[in-house]
Amino acid sequence: MAVVSEPGKEMYALVERLYPLCRSITGDGVRATLDIVGEYLPLQVHEVPTGTPVLDWTVPREWNIRDAYVADAAGDRVIDFAASNLHVLGYSVPVAGTMPLAELRAHLHTLPDQPTLVPYRTSYYAPTWGFCLAQEVLDALPEGDYEVRVDSTLADGHLTYAEHVVPGQVPDEVIVSCHVCHPSLANDNLAGIAVATFLARALAERSPYYTYRFIYAPGTIGAITWLARNAERIDRVRHGLVLACAGDSGSLTYKRSRRGDAEIDRVMGHVLTTSQRPHEVREFTPYGYDERQYCSPGFDLGVGSLTRTPYAGYPEYHTSADNLDLVSPDAMADTLAVCREAFAVLDRNRRYRNLSPYGEPQLGRRGLYDALGGRSDTKQAQMAMLWVLSLSDGEHGLLDVAERAGLPFDTVAAAADALRDAGLITT
Amino acid sequence: MAVVSEPGKEMYALVERLYPLCRSITGDGVRATLDIVGEYLPLQVHEVPTGTPVLDWTVPREWNIRDAYVADAAGDRVIDFAASNLHVLGYSVPVAGTMPLAELRAHLHTLPDQPTLVPYRTSYYAPTWGFCLAQEVLDALPEGDYEVRVDSTLADGHLTYAEHVVPGQVPDEVIVSCHVCHPSLANDNLAGIAVATFLARALAERSPYYTYRFIYAPGTIGAITWLARNAERIDRVRHGLVLACAGDSGSLTYKRSRRGDAEIDRVMGHVLTTSQRPHEVREFTPYGYDERQYCSPGFDLGVGSLTRTPYAGYPEYHTSADNLDLVSPDAMADTLAVCREAFAVLDRNRRYRNLSPYGEPQLGRRGLYDALGGRSDTKQAQMAMLWVLSLSDGEHGLLDVAERAGLPFDTVAAAADALRDAGLITT
Amino acid sequence: MAVVSEPGKEMYALVERLYPLCRSITGDGVRATLDIVGEYLPLQVHEVPTGTPVLDWTVPREWNIRDAYVADAAGDRVIDFAASNLHVLGYSVPVAGTMPLAELRAHLHTLPDQPTLVPYRTSYYAPTWGFCLAQEVLDALPEGDYEVRVDSTLADGHLTYAEHVVPGQVPDEVIVSCHVCHPSLANDNLAGIAVATFLARALAERSPYYTYRFIYAPGTIGAITWLARNAERIDRVRHGLVLACAGDSGSLTYKRSRRGDAEIDRVMGHVLTTSQRPHEVREFTPYGYDERQYCSPGFDLGVGSLTRTPYAGYPEYHTSADNLDLVSPDAMADTLAVCREAFAVLDRNRRYRNLSPYGEPQLGRRGLYDALGGRSDTKQAQMAMLWVLSLSDGEHGLLDVAERAGLPFDTVAAAADALRDAGLITT
Repeated sequence: MAVVSEPGKEMYALVERLYPLCRSITGDGVRATLDIVGEYLPLQVHEVPTGTPVLDWTVPREWNIRDAYVADAAGDRVIDFAASNLHVLGYSVPVAGTMPLAELRAHLHTLPDQPTLVPYRTSYYAPTWGFCLAQEVLDALPEGDYEVRVDSTLADGHLTYAEHVVPGQVPDEVIVSCHVCHPSLANDNLAGIAVATFLARALAERSPYYTYRFIYAPGTIGAITWLARNAERIDRVRHGLVLACAGDSGSLTYKRSRRGDAEIDRVMGHVLTTSQRPHEVREFTPYGYDERQYCSPGFDLGVGSLTRTPYAGYPEYHTSADNLDLVSPDAMADTLAVCREAFAVLDRNRRYRNLSPYGEPQLGRRGLYDALGGRSDTKQAQMAMLWVLSLSDGEHGLLDVAERAGLPFDTVAAAADALRDAGLITT
Repeated sequence: MAVVSEPGKEMYALVERLYPLCRSITGDGVRATLDIVGEYLPLQVHEVPTGTPVLDWTVPREWNIRDAYVADAAGDRVIDFAASNLHVLGYSVPVAGTMPLAELRAHLHTLPDQPTLVPYRTSYYAPTWGFCLAQEVLDALPEGDYEVRVDSTLADGHLTYAEHVVPGQVPDEVIVSCHVCHPSLANDNLAGIAVATFLARALAERSPYYTYRFIYAPGTIGAITWLARNAERIDRVRHGLVLACAGDSGSLTYKRSRRGDAEIDRVMGHVLTTSQRPHEVREFTPYGYDERQYCSPGFDLGVGSLTRTPYAGYPEYHTSADNLDLVSPDAMADTLAVCREAFAVLDRNRRYRNLSPYGEPQLGRRGLYDALGGRSDTKQAQMAMLWVLSLSDGEHGLLDVAERAGLPFDTVAAAADALRDAGLITT
Repeated sequence: MAVVSEPGKEMYALVERLYPLCRSITGDGVRATLDIVGEYLPLQVHEVPTGTPVLDWTVPREWNIRDAYVADAAGDRVIDFAASNLHVLGYSVPVAGTMPLAELRAHLHTLPDQPTLVPYRTSYYAPTWGFCLAQEVLDALPEGDYEVRVDSTLADGHLTYAEHVVPGQVPDEVIVSCHVCHPSLANDNLAGIAVATFLARALAERSPYYTYRFIYAPGTIGAITWLARNAERIDRVRHGLVLACAGDSGSLTYKRSRRGDAEIDRVMGHVLTTSQRPHEVREFTPYGYDERQYCSPGFDLGVGSLTRTPYAGYPEYHTSADNLDLVSPDAMADTLAVCREAFAVLDRNRRYRNLSPYGEPQLGRRGLYDALGGRSDTKQAQMAMLWVLSLSDGEHGLLDVAERAGLPFDTVAAAADALRDAGLITT
């Protein structure tokens, strides 16, 4: 039986706390979520006013909801926000009245092919209201009049997002981005939020090379807002990763950046392959999570996306079945482990220059080579040194060396450390 | 049963009319051919005098033939030009006399491996005379004296070729070239002439983007003459296609340009693949039809070649069996359809520039995106728009988009139209 | 039965003569070896004093040995240099004394997995002494005292290497390098020395295009010394080949240069493939023979390595079983034949420029093309001419032509000669 790791348990507990909150792209649900994450990490929370122009978009009005229901003639709530926040179409405008089922149907959303599940639906930019419910519940509703109530507010306010920075040895940044706008959906994206949070904590423990910036923002409009407000920082972003669907039982899927051969793409491919996990690497498409924004052609950042089962790839996706049963501590721990390993490679993937490039330097007199000649079982560590020397021509990084040599990255990085300490290579 | 299309029937009727004429690289057979084509399309006919230097060559003397035969002692014609113009070696000089079969044999050409067929042979640049006949006919000839007569003229005159231009929206040109020098051979190249002719008519109906120039010219020396006389136009030639062997029952074969990755190569490959026709794409070789001249290294034009069974690839090739039975209306209609589809793609394969490249533009407020969020079955049209936006960076054309996105070209082109109309992209 | 070729017999005889000599990286064994090679080829012998700085290294003290043994209490030599020079650790410092077996063991080297064989071991740069012996001999030695004697000299002197130059039509050089530092090991590298020697003689017979420089030098320090002393010549080195393990019964292995696509890499790959020999082509690794030095990133020469069974790839490697039985005249003759063929291709692999690049030149009037047209069985020689004309654009060499055309290199080279003689192409 798998032993659930401590971080796995802690991440699962965080998901459990966040699950009931009614998040959207704005509003108090996001703030409550960031408050809880803030107990794990210090967060810099940003509030951006409604109407602020952000790239081609405008920050929308803020939406908050207190209650919503459809009640039958007897006054019984047949659809009830209090039972699940998925029952309300996201960004529903206020409504109060009575109407026959025939008229109400235009505002009801179901999944005919998954009749027991409640779909997740939103209408951020076209003002309307609606309810989501199981097809089988809808089928059981008798015709007749129903009381309809959405007690919401759609008004000028703010869009809320947060950042946490793990300072590095250099100002060059790696961004890790996760969306915080989905209501009670566990895998999409509470698991991503949890993994990002524990990843930030883990990175802080080892004083990373790069500066790591964690972005908790609503999908699309949040990433666009961050990009709009950080124009001066973009040039510092060297790499990035969007984390989503990080806790289901599927194997890992890495989706490459638009560039397709960005360093993060090569690092993730290397780590997933050499770890011998079952996994899939997919080419970029301009659909999915916020890599859409970071990889838009004007920015074209080296940002990939890591999920377990990818975007829209599982039957529970965007339904009430994306609940606490769908995610597990082990799966989140596994996602976290791969992220940690990948960033450990990324942080050490330097390009060195061989300071003694004419012929091999005499490693033996520097204590780096076996004195006894003639043996054919040269050690891996010595092979790694020869490879680093051979490829340290300013064009190859240590990951290139590891892949061309067929050696573990750690062995190559250790060889580079030894050679650097001996004054034979330099960055 | 296949229903023969109207263009198929009409093309076949054209082939039937052209079949009896005795064409060569010069002479009245070419003029008669162009006269008939001229009934379908207005042609600009060019007459280039003998002795005109054209690139490394010189326009040869003009050849015309009235009669030719070999008659036995009884006066019976055992080989007769009147029965088939293939019986005379092309460009035979005049001869009249009597000689024993033993002496005549040096002037007789047969196909020992295909003893019932008459071969097609020429001697354009080495003055001689000869007859072509079936091996089995030769074998049956008794020894003895024969009367030999070639009533031909080889004298200063002209080389004849013609052009037809379908004007486009831009002066950049696509050339479509077919050779008109072969005598009674149906597939090679009356079928090519017929497809080119009906292709020109089809293009004229849709006001194409490119200007399409159709070249009807004798093989090799005709293409060389055209190139020599159009030095100032070459820079305008963006793409081209040589049409030959367009009517046999084999599947389509596209031969790439010398460049190998010219736009016409990609377009033809895309259309043949996505049309799910059986087909073959071959690499360039410097042998075959007039792509040899257009793709010579000094010009290196993006000109490919479309045939059904390729050059010299069928047993009837350059024999009396390349007759009206070898070609069919359906096959020509199929070749025509692929050409039309390919040029439709070529004409729309623009490169656009995303005018809103930082983040995604808000498609929803422009009516280009579903208002209701959360659904995973995003429509192909919306995916096409996202792909066009993502790749409209000045480096990718719409064909690149279609191939990378795995979407039909038409869907991508329609998405580009919508985005252009919304002011989001521009050429 | 294979008929042993004359060069095969002669090369084997040379190996037999060289086999008994005790070579090392310095000393009289190298000199005696070069004296014998000098009977076959005039050699320029270089003596480089101890202490000379060479790149990152220093020429070491010179080592010579007269006798060495371990004798038991009865005075019987249980390990004896006179029986095989492999019994002494290369570069053993002088020692004379008596010690118990328990103490002696630290200086004894065996191969526990190959208990009947004597290993080859050296300690060039860490002063020590030692003996090599079969494990089964060691196992049979009774405990007790043994007399130990190494009668060697390690003193200032010289490092010796030699060169032989086959002058070419151009000063650009091809280097052929073989190591001469191994004692009684037949395949590694007496076979390499023999093949190099007979290759030089064969090249001299045909007045090669390139200047060929043969380097006979001790491994590592010898190549480094040559590189250090020939800084001004390096720029003239266009190609190179390291020859080793040239006589065993395995198939040929070519190891690419560090560049991976150097011309020598392409030539060797072409020759090995088209010769239809079983063979293997391996990517560069920074381990093996002196290609390590020639391909170090500061030089990065186009130098590959040809062996039969590669470095450390056979069980007899660096043991007493790498003896005269391991190598054969036929295997050496085969290695020699491939080298000759490869250098014949290399010498003719020119890049030509088509002087008549606009359209095809009229080959017929230059006597280069069949007068009779219409035949489909165009000869290979004519196809080769068309290919050379098509690709002679300054970017393709004749090997490119041969590979793209799928024609034998010799046919392509002959076509290029004919076109050059006709004034149609030039280098």
